[in-house]
Amino acid sequence: MRNKIVHFLKSAGGYLSGEEISRHIKISRAGIWKYIQELREDGYDIVAVPHLGYRYLSSPDRLLPVEILFELGTKILGKDIRHFDSLTSTMDVAFQLGVEGACEGTVVCAESQTKGKGRLGRSWASPKGKGIYMSVILRPALLPSDLTQLTLLSSVAVCEAVNKFCNIAAKIKWPNDILVGDKKLAGILTESSAEMDRVRFIVVGIGINVNASLSQLPPHSTSIKNETGQKISRVVLMQEVLRSLERWYAVLGKDGFAPVIARWKQLSSTLGHHVRVIDPSGDVEGEAVDLDENGGLIIRDDNGLKIKRMSGDVVHIG
Amino acid sequence: MRNKIVHFLKSAGGYLSGEEISRHIKISRAGIWKYIQELREDGYDIVAVPHLGYRYLSSPDRLLPVEILFELGTKILGKDIRHFDSLTSTMDVAFQLGVEGACEGTVVCAESQTKGKGRLGRSWASPKGKGIYMSVILRPALLPSDLTQLTLLSSVAVCEAVNKFCNIAAKIKWPNDILVGDKKLAGILTESSAEMDRVRFIVVGIGINVNASLSQLPPHSTSIKNETGQKISRVVLMQEVLRSLERWYAVLGKDGFAPVIARWKQLSSTLGHHVRVIDPSGDVEGEAVDLDENGGLIIRDDNGLKIKRMSGDVVHIG
Repeated sequence: MRNKIVHFLKSAGGYLSGEEISRHIKISRAGIWKYIQELREDGYDIVAVPHLGYRYLSSPDRLLPVEILFELGTKILGKDIRHFDSLTSTMDVAFQLGVEGACEGTVVCAESQTKGKGRLGRSWASPKGKGIYMSVILRPALLPSDLTQLTLLSSVAVCEAVNKFCNIAAKIKWPNDILVGDKKLAGILTESSAEMDRVRFIVVGIGINVNASLSQLPPHSTSIKNETGQKISRVVLMQEVLRSLERWYAVLGKDGFAPVIARWKQLSSTLGHHVRVIDPSGDVEGEAVDLDENGGLIIRDDNGLKIKRMSGDVVHIG
Repeated sequence: MRNKIVHFLKSAGGYLSGEEISRHIKISRAGIWKYIQELREDGYDIVAVPHLGYRYLSSPDRLLPVEILFELGTKILGKDIRHFDSLTSTMDVAFQLGVEGACEGTVVCAESQTKGKGRLGRSWASPKGKGIYMSVILRPALLPSDLTQLTLLSSVAVCEAVNKFCNIAAKIKWPNDILVGDKKLAGILTESSAEMDRVRFIVVGIGINVNASLSQLPPHSTSIKNETGQKISRVVLMQEVLRSLERWYAVLGKDGFAPVIARWKQLSSTLGHHVRVIDPSGDVEGEAVDLDENGGLIIRDDNGLKIKRMSGDVVHIG
């Protein structure tokens, strides 16, 4: 009901009389007044003028489902959005929902995380209200061994959305860090549950530094605000990310992994660079020359030997 | 305390006076009497004779942790055993325990399952008290793409344990059905939780038809009782399986996958046979000629072309 009132007010642009809203939403004018009061308490700026009615002015700066859903336009992603002011980690909550059978496209998002997760057991700084911290549940028809595809796909989707919406030129560092220059802007994390021959679900976690100042972030980080000088709407950016992720997910389903790899290569800051890959299976140093068909990084060492890595940390050298 | 009393009585072989038990376990003789009564109610046959004391005669036919732990001798597997009279599926319970951080080697077992799981969404018949229905949580240092190794390893471990303990000649049908002739005796199911570059945990599910009669099982099934004509101890067989699984798990950790593959090939009923692999990525028919280094089945079709399958159902033809 709240969602309907907000969407109707936002769509109208100008004033709407209580009677008009009442007719459209099918609740009493007293009921409308009660919901409007609630919305104002949640931070909505809605003016009420006698004889004119209600007018929407602005929404609170929060990733509320009602805001994300407004003109989202996706078919799968975000049909069910669970929003939290604070939680341990969107990954943990989404994974549990996945275990319990939550449907494909379910999104968990939060204003802040007390134990935000990064790759390889690291943490992800999650200052309150300053970033997008979200996890998306997907149930792809993939073999477990092909799950890397979704990790790389997600980095492509996020990188494109950020670049388009914020007019910056972020690049992907293998496998899935989103950097501006050598500063981290966003990160992708995936966690999956699989049987031998099929994936049950995968949770794609996306962390984006949006309106944080550098003092709120770890070293070697940046935010969109720091890059552009402007505070941007996290809601609209999150919508862009969901649309981009859905678009690329459809590409994978229809045309396979090749177009994803092709686009990943275009957005990569790793290929062509001299790198060191730090990995438990042995460090490798050389030129990052290619991505193989599974998303593995091919490095050519000083002896001309080509070595493949499926995991590890990349350091760009020189 | 119960465990200590049972283990002490079983080790003794003959009569133990209340005083001896009291000294060994460090509780009062009245306390011992209370525990003995409880054990009898649970189905233990323990005689009490004035001036002689207590004597253990037999245990109930249940997979009780106290029984499994008696002289088990493993280092990792079975240190924590959760036993249920009935549950939906040991897989679901163990997976949830894995999510919550249960330690490596935790075992979930049950007398019966209401939704016993088989491969590819199928069910596993679980008549009460007639089989071994267990799931083991492992936390291997493997890449997600290498998890197939544990599926094949488990089939080797179970096949060896069954053959040794029951003196039968069960074989493995790719990837991990345990058959006697063309009848299914046992099945392996694995479910895993992984990040991009590391496995969080894998649950190895093992179902063995032990003392069931054929009328209690689906078509094309057999049980150990049906094969040998004898009712065997599920407890002792479960111990053998845990020991065998731990032994092969140690081999994988120390020497890698090659020795597992070598043993799998010896126990296989698939290699050398004319087979059809039914698989969403396309059915294949031909001679099963080899297992590749990742556990994939290599089929040579009528044109001499070698085709690899990582999933699917094998039908032995002719």
